[in-house]
Amino acid sequence: MVNGMPGPMALETAKACVDRGYKLIPWGFTGPNMIKDIDVTGASKTVKVQLVKGPGVGGPEVIDLLRKIKNENPNLVVIDYTHPSATLNNVKAYVSCECDFVMGTTGGDLVQMTDIQSKAKNSIAVIAPNMAKQIVAVQATLQHMASRFPNSFVDYKLSVRESHQSTKADTSGTAKAIVSHLTTLNGERSFTLEDIEMIRDEKGQLAFGVPSEALRGHAFHTYRLVSSDGSVAFELQHNVCGRRVYAEGTADAVAFVDEMRRRGGRTKSLFNMIDVLEAGAMN
Amino acid sequence: MVNGMPGPMALETAKACVDRGYKLIPWGFTGPNMIKDIDVTGASKTVKVQLVKGPGVGGPEVIDLLRKIKNENPNLVVIDYTHPSATLNNVKAYVSCECDFVMGTTGGDLVQMTDIQSKAKNSIAVIAPNMAKQIVAVQATLQHMASRFPNSFVDYKLSVRESHQSTKADTSGTAKAIVSHLTTLNGERSFTLEDIEMIRDEKGQLAFGVPSEALRGHAFHTYRLVSSDGSVAFELQHNVCGRRVYAEGTADAVAFVDEMRRRGGRTKSLFNMIDVLEAGAMN
Repeated sequence: MVNGMPGPMALETAKACVDRGYKLIPWGFTGPNMIKDIDVTGASKTVKVQLVKGPGVGGPEVIDLLRKIKNENPNLVVIDYTHPSATLNNVKAYVSCECDFVMGTTGGDLVQMTDIQSKAKNSIAVIAPNMAKQIVAVQATLQHMASRFPNSFVDYKLSVRESHQSTKADTSGTAKAIVSHLTTLNGERSFTLEDIEMIRDEKGQLAFGVPSEALRGHAFHTYRLVSSDGSVAFELQHNVCGRRVYAEGTADAVAFVDEMRRRGGRTKSLFNMIDVLEAGAMN
Repeated sequence: MVNGMPGPMALETAKACVDRGYKLIPWGFTGPNMIKDIDVTGASKTVKVQLVKGPGVGGPEVIDLLRKIKNENPNLVVIDYTHPSATLNNVKAYVSCECDFVMGTTGGDLVQMTDIQSKAKNSIAVIAPNMAKQIVAVQATLQHMASRFPNSFVDYKLSVRESHQSTKADTSGTAKAIVSHLTTLNGERSFTLEDIEMIRDEKGQLAFGVPSEALRGHAFHTYRLVSSDGSVAFELQHNVCGRRVYAEGTADAVAFVDEMRRRGGRTKSLFNMIDVLEAGAMN
């Protein structure tokens, strides 16, 4: 069951799940004043989904519907790509109906959500601010590298360029996190977030390698470390077009939740994408 | 004291040490039929070094000279960039004269060398097949990533290109090691070493970004992982021109040896570049 349709991230995730052969529950919670139903069309199948006002903004009758769906589908995993303002009430509803879920909505109160979920007795969940598991893996790896080999790139000069669709005003959060690890490696304490070059104009983006069809939705990052004499250069790029990688990561989180409960592992109720990644050997 | 001059790696390392302000002992062991002396010219200083037939190919009188140099310079660290055929006898000579040393010569019997050195009582040494510590750090980090997050890049297609001077006939050893980690990440068991694209022609090298002045000595590597739908790409490059990075890593190993003995840490006699890297926080 995917909540938050017809939002683009919810829809992309629903498609990814249909493509994997997961059974998509023909119900979805959404905000008020939204359309009534939607077709989710995967590569080989279309599922018609009825949209109803979600638990985050709904009354007791909506909770009753969620409980009914759960009773009819004991293996239910709810996917949440709704709205920051809805997440906390949604988590409370999922927990009270003993639903397992994957929370991909960002901007909500992460501390409160994880606090509630960590105490849940009959619900397990993956709550993660970034569902692109390969990027999470790279971030965690650079964090490990920086703590294991601090100052190993002393005197190397860092430069960072990132490109996102022109509607994104702020600096990439992923770039910020990775910069903190890279400056631990090169000891460049004077590197500030203003030193990250943001590319938001189409001409610059095309020159940076962004395909024209991805100008309206992409996340391209290039980090470069060059030795003081210029003879050695390291470069790392992670370039994402569209939303597919986040949808696939969310579907991986669903598979992880299913695996955890099949193992009877309800001793822990809260997981993140590092847990999903570390369980990768089970695939 | 640097052994193996006028070999280019020994000479570059001697220069790096002079540039750091280390005292260069005006003696160096070398092979038979070599020139008698050499000027080591750093950025601000020139040291005249007398070359003599080394312990690996020399008689008892050469061992006596080494012992004399050690007695006159209790903080001596010997750097060895000699010949594979000389390394084993050199290690025996260093150990018998209670010299600390850094062995950068490759192609020797690493198992025998490390076996002798690990039992040494009054000699500590760094023995490492690759002195480019930043590249060693990247290799170790990718090894860690692969063991922590196996299969996290399943369905990502790997491509690898490497360029070295045209005299290098075989595939890059670093590329082989890193490929083994990347194929653990993407599960691409069909990827073979033949799939590594070797660039050995000048035109291809210039197109690959090699500066024309580095055509005769460089090591450029590009690894790329692309998702099956092409929407996500990760790329890692490590590009080295010349020998400076290896010389600097060797000088770092000398500093590490000095730090270890000043700490009185002679409980362990054998170290590698990972030890040097992990001690980086001391710099």
